[in-house]
This record gives sequence, structure tokens and C-alpha cells, in this order.
Amino acid sequence: MYKKMEILAMNRFDPYQSAALEPGVSQHVARRAASFGASSVLFYAQPIDMVRAHGAYMFDAGGRRYLDLYNNVASVGHSHPVVVEAVSRQLTVLNTHTRYLNEGIEAYAEELLNTFPDQLSNLVMTCTGSEANDLALRIAQSKTNAKGFIVTRAAYHGNTAAVAEISPSALRHRAPASHVKVIDAPDSRLASNRNCALHFERSVSAAIEELNGSGVGFCALIVDSIFSSDGIFSDPAGFLQIAVQKVQQANGLFIADEVQPGFGRTGDAMWGFMRHGVIPDIVTLGKPMGNGFPMGGVVTRPELLQKFCEETGYFDTFAGSPVAAAAGSAVLKVLKEEGLLENAATVGTYLKQGLMDLKERSPRVGDIRGVGLFIGLDLIDPANGSPDPNFAGLTINALKENCILIGAAGSFGHTLKIRPPLCFSKEDANVFLEALDMALALNDR
Amino acid sequence: MYKKMEILAMNRFDPYQSAALEPGVSQHVARRAASFGASSVLFYAQPIDMVRAHGAYMFDAGGRRYLDLYNNVASVGHSHPVVVEAVSRQLTVLNTHTRYLNEGIEAYAEELLNTFPDQLSNLVMTCTGSEANDLALRIAQSKTNAKGFIVTRAAYHGNTAAVAEISPSALRHRAPASHVKVIDAPDSRLASNRNCALHFERSVSAAIEELNGSGVGFCALIVDSIFSSDGIFSDPAGFLQIAVQKVQQANGLFIADEVQPGFGRTGDAMWGFMRHGVIPDIVTLGKPMGNGFPMGGVVTRPELLQKFCEETGYFDTFAGSPVAAAAGSAVLKVLKEEGLLENAATVGTYLKQGLMDLKERSPRVGDIRGVGLFIGLDLIDPANGSPDPNFAGLTINALKENCILIGAAGSFGHTLKIRPPLCFSKEDANVFLEALDMALALNDR
Repeated sequence: MYKKMEILAMNRFDPYQSAALEPGVSQHVARRAASFGASSVLFYAQPIDMVRAHGAYMFDAGGRRYLDLYNNVASVGHSHPVVVEAVSRQLTVLNTHTRYLNEGIEAYAEELLNTFPDQLSNLVMTCTGSEANDLALRIAQSKTNAKGFIVTRAAYHGNTAAVAEISPSALRHRAPASHVKVIDAPDSRLASNRNCALHFERSVSAAIEELNGSGVGFCALIVDSIFSSDGIFSDPAGFLQIAVQKVQQANGLFIADEVQPGFGRTGDAMWGFMRHGVIPDIVTLGKPMGNGFPMGGVVTRPELLQKFCEETGYFDTFAGSPVAAAAGSAVLKVLKEEGLLENAATVGTYLKQGLMDLKERSPRVGDIRGVGLFIGLDLIDPANGSPDPNFAGLTINALKENCILIGAAGSFGHTLKIRPPLCFSKEDANVFLEALDMALALNDR
Repeated sequence: MYKKMEILAMNRFDPYQSAALEPGVSQHVARRAASFGASSVLFYAQPIDMVRAHGAYMFDAGGRRYLDLYNNVASVGHSHPVVVEAVSRQLTVLNTHTRYLNEGIEAYAEELLNTFPDQLSNLVMTCTGSEANDLALRIAQSKTNAKGFIVTRAAYHGNTAAVAEISPSALRHRAPASHVKVIDAPDSRLASNRNCALHFERSVSAAIEELNGSGVGFCALIVDSIFSSDGIFSDPAGFLQIAVQKVQQANGLFIADEVQPGFGRTGDAMWGFMRHGVIPDIVTLGKPMGNGFPMGGVVTRPELLQKFCEETGYFDTFAGSPVAAAAGSAVLKVLKEEGLLENAATVGTYLKQGLMDLKERSPRVGDIRGVGLFIGLDLIDPANGSPDPNFAGLTINALKENCILIGAAGSFGHTLKIRPPLCFSKEDANVFLEALDMALALNDR
């Protein structure tokens, strides 16, 4: 259960080895540590001094250009001019809260809600995905009068006190609280595709019984609809259906955390839950929503929101500002005008095929999963096929030396997490495939 | 204890009276309700369709210009060109997370930390004041191995699940949880100035004993250092000292919530706690930090942060981005270059004197408190001097008709909360004083 932290640590700069740092970097790292102390987490054995980014590329202080397969916040592309211009223009005009009427936020809400099933017709704006999940938990508890949540083993849903409790991957050295039941993700590696759905449904049912039996009561199942932190599980499409039916039969709610899969990343739909033919009771949004402008949201049915608001005063100062609306509208516009869902589907399929071909050649490559521009690739020990997180760490650092940015995920920490900006091209895919091929060969010597 | 909500309701648009709305506004309100449902809260009997703002002024769709004495987020002035330009420029260059090195965020952290006492040398960036307080509570609990917090009766510290629990003014229809002890704010109206400090210290001591006695354990006293929601209590300077001493003697922590008083609003110092000659263990920042760009922060001692980070993985995706750094640096620059602390002190003193003069003429004006550009003015029933929240609501709506934006606060909901952008001028003060004089006379007929 605590493996996720190990992989983060592995891909993390180790301050106790800073003697080996280049001089410029060393000074930077010292300044960082002086101000941010223990909260500073840097990527890579040699951290990167990043100064610029555009499209799918980032540039360091030395002028090196990196192809970005890590950052899913700048989802329509780093520094996208349409988003930048919309935000910059609105900043000169008005940036205030939602207690005044404003055409911008009203139009954005309508446009965003149009991408959801009809019954999900209300939106609450927040500033982050964490705030969205924090609010979603309370809306669910208010509706069900129960406290208990079911989450997956390596899930991460955010950083507030309440949300960290339902994020097993954020809890170091301690077990989840009694109102949280942790179950296996629907891991397609562990069973046949048919059984993965069934296995998940059975785990959910057992957890519901436990929560109801213990007096905590079953409130909701919350999942990232592509199980990003658990290792990226997307197939077979529809595998969530029987579990969600069970949840709703048990008078619980289904919360789809779309912070990572949402806004078209899966290529086949705007929202990850759509791939499974289910309708959540609550959906939470974050990361790509403003392409880096801090914004998140909760989408739900009006009656759920009504009950919560009668019990608790909720207001989020910065959320839903005309500037957030401008950022959000620009993101929706670019997604549409540049055909980024189609691009995610086309380039994602091309990239996945390229990775399948690589698997044929490399005994280091294990299972490959995912859809659109969200792909997980397991790195394994060729001797016995077991997860090799150490090799994943070496590969991530080797790819960085070859100007590719990428990270890892999954319960075992051996899954390369491939989630570039959605403007990623086939040419970019070729660059990555070649670099990965080299990194695997290099580290295998 | 629940009066705060009543005053919000009073200054709030009532959707059940929408028949009286002007046609354009009515359509807006209907759209707002359709998308935001029960979460939509609008100010005023006739909500304002706001389209533009600059400096201390905001403009509605009909071209009316309002003088703003309400909004403390756009603290250096709405749409300030220096902040807008800094954010816009950085957006075209790089907007990413803190796991890469970046000169911008490192320089900002140093500049910000320089405004704090030496021992408060670490910063964690967040996206909101709520996230900052949510994190501060956990840092404090980690340090003390205790759970219990002491808060003031009408306090508001933010909107996450954990922070709402320590915000009595956000809890509708229910008492605080057992780990939260609610005490009276140091209300200078209730006792002599000397006794207000002593009374507060005694309340804190009693609450510490209760928490330790109940097994919850005393963790921290958290206060907004100018008691914004409680009714604005600033004097006598130093009144927090003996209570903070008691807290620290009891091995608890003192958390100063600077979300409202911070960044120079009190005119006499950058931070509200400085007025009282105390050094907090943890300081939280928010609202004015980016002049509307969503950002917050926690400032504390390295050893406190160290302990928390060993126990819990903490990362905030959008927080500490180069764009947040640009916004924050621009705010610090403008505060300095435009002498806004000095302006807050000078204009604040002038305004307070004007209000004192008004009190001489109007039996409706009760106690006047505050410092710099954060002033509370009680509106009372002339017959018996008792709080008159209904009259406050009438006055707020009357001032709005006269193009002045203002709100109310305090346990009794009868305190006009005067906190304009810090670029507020003596001329602006004169406009407000005249309008208030008229509103008081008008509503008194």
C-alpha cells in the first residue's frame, strides 16, 4: 500500500547526494531548501532549472528542449496563446468573486455543463481538484447521512485533511481511518477482462457490507475513472458498470474523480466515466480545467447540492472569477477548434501500437494499458516478469538525460505514466518511442 | 453563534422575491440559478451585473461606477497594471509546478519570508487561504500530537471540511465538533481595554484545560489577527500577548490567520500579528496575496514542517507556479513602490476620524474600531444602543443604490465592515463619508 511513495522517492532528488550537483543547480537547490524546507520535492537526481515551455515542449536554463510526457495540467499545450490571451485580457477588465452577476462565468458554466449527462446540471466552482473532492465528500455525506467511503489501493484524490484520508497513496506509515475501506483497483493484469469487472464489483459489495456493518454506514465509492495512481486501468470499457449499479442499489453514491482523465484525455469522450457507460452522482474536476490557471469544480444533481447548502455555508473566494471563466472557456474552445480529443485518440492509438511493437523487442516491457493520451507501461524484471520499480527509476532518469520528461505510477511503482499534453503529435510519439527504446537498451546493459 | 449567517442572508439576494427584478438582471439570475443551483449566493436585493473594475472602483453593465469598500482581494487595486502585466508575461513563458527548479518562485519565497520574523523561515505555497489553514491545522496536530483547537465565536477560517469545523460562522444549525472550543473574541466593547486582554487570556486558559481534560488535547489557538468575522478588534495593540504566552507555556501553538489582515491592510505593519508584539508558530496567508490570482501560503518554522512532511506526503499541483510567483512578487512591489502601507495608515486614520465625527451627529452609529484600512462601525438602535443588524442591511442596500459597495460582519451582524483596496484615497473616503451620512439619515426617516 505504501509503494507509491517509494516510487515518488525514487524519481525524486535526494538532498543528501547534492555533492554531485552541477554548480548552478546546487545553488538553486540550496535556495529552494532554505525557503521551502521539508516541503520541497524536486524531480530527478539532477533537478531541472525550467525556464520556458510551449506546446508539448519545455526548456531549461541551459537551453535544452524537453519533450513533455508528464504534465497533464497544461493539457492543451504549455503557454497556449488562446488561453494566455483570454486570461490576460480578462485580468485587465475584471477579476472578482461570484457574488456579483457576470456573463462570463454564467456562459462558462452552461458550456461546461453541456458536456455532461442532463441530470448532472449543477456546478460548484473551486480553485483546485483537492477542494473539489473535499466538497464532493461532504455533499455525499449530507445526502446519505453516512460517513464511509470506498477507495482503491493506490488512489490519490488530493491534499486537504479530509481528502488525504481517502488517498491511501498519501498516507505514510499509517493505515486509513475507519471510515475508509480500501479495495483493489480493477486491475486487468490480475484476471481475465470479464473477471476484472466482477472482481471489482465483489470487492465493492464486501466493502459496502463492512461499512454498513460497522455502523459507519456506506456513503460513496470514489474512483479516478482511469485509475491514474493505481496504474492506469481503462479496459475493458464498461468494467465499472456492475460495481456502480451495486453502489446505487445500496443507496450509496458514485463519485467520478475526473481530475486526471477528464477534459478529453481518453480521446473517446470528454469524461473518463463515459467510457464505462455509467452516470456518476458527483463528478470532480481539476488539473487541465484552466490549462494551469488554478481552478476545479464539482458537478452534481441539484437536489444533492440543495441538501448540502442548507446545512453548510459554502463560498470559495477566488473560484468562479471572470478570469477563471475566461481560462476555462478558452480551454473548451481550443479542445474543440484544434480537435484535441480526436488527436488524443489518433496519436494515442499510434503511440500504443508503437509501444506494443517495442514490447515485442524488449523483455523489459510488460503489460501496456490505457486509452487516448493516457497510457501505462509496466517495466519488469525479464528473469521472472515481476515489477521492477528500480528499473523504472533508472529509465525515468535516463529519458530525462535524453530530453524526455516522464513519471511513474501504480501500486508497484513500475508503471511508466505516459500522459503528454493533448497536442502531442505522431512525430513527438516517434521521438519518445526511439528514446524509450534506447533507454531500455542502455539501462539493461 | 449563528448570527453571522443571518447577516449574510440579509445582504443576500432572495431568489423568492425575484419578481421585482429588472428584466436584464432577472434573466441573468435565472441562468445563474440553473447552473449553480443552491450554491449560488448573490449580494443585494437587486444583484449587480459587474463588468469592469479599476483601482478602488467597479463598474456595472449599465455603466454605473461603484466605490469599493468591500473587496480585500484586489488589495492593491482592481486590475492593477503591474500585477496584470507580470501575470500575463509569465503566462506566455512558463506555468508549471514546483518539482522543477525555477528562479521566480525561489526569489518570491525569499522576498516574502523577509517580511517575517527570522524564525518563521519556511513557506509552503497553496492555492487558497482555506488550503493554507487546512494544512496549518495538520502541521500543528503533527507537532503537538494533540487534536484540539481554540477559535473565536464568529470566526471564519475557510471552506474545506477540516477548516469549516473550526469556523463557527460556517456551521449552520449545528454545534462545533468536540475537538473545537469556541471562546469570545477579545471584544473591546465588553470591558475596559485592559480587561479585554485579560478576559481573552482567561477564556483561552479555560479552553486549554477543557481540551486537555477531555482527552482531545490542546493543539493550537487560531485567530484572525484582526478578528474580521467577529467584528474587527484591533485595540489595544498588544492584547494578544498574554493569551499567546499562555498557549505556548501550555505546549500549544499559536496560528495567526493573516488571510484578511495581512499584506499591509492594518497600515502599521505587513502582518496583523505584529501589532500585538507576538510571534506565531504558524502564519497563514491568502486573499490579497496575488491580488486575485488564486494563491495562499503557510509560513512556519522548519522543524514544524519537517515533522509533518515525514508523516504525510503533501503536494499542491497549481501552487507555487512561476505565474503565482509573478503575481505575488508584483503585489509586494506595488505595496512598496506605491507606499500602500503608509496610505492605509494615513487614509485609514483620516477615514476613522471622519466616522468619529459622523458618530457625533448620528445616534445610529455605535462603536468604531479598527486600524489602517480595516474599520468596523456598529449600527445600533438609537433607543437603547442595542445592535441593529436589520438597519445594517438597509444601510448596505441604500449605499449600493448610492454606488458604494460595503458589507457587514460580527457576531451580531450589525458591524459595517470597511475594507477597501489599499489604494483608497482621502477623496474616496470623503465620498464614502458623505454617502454614509445620507444613508443613515435616509433609512432613519
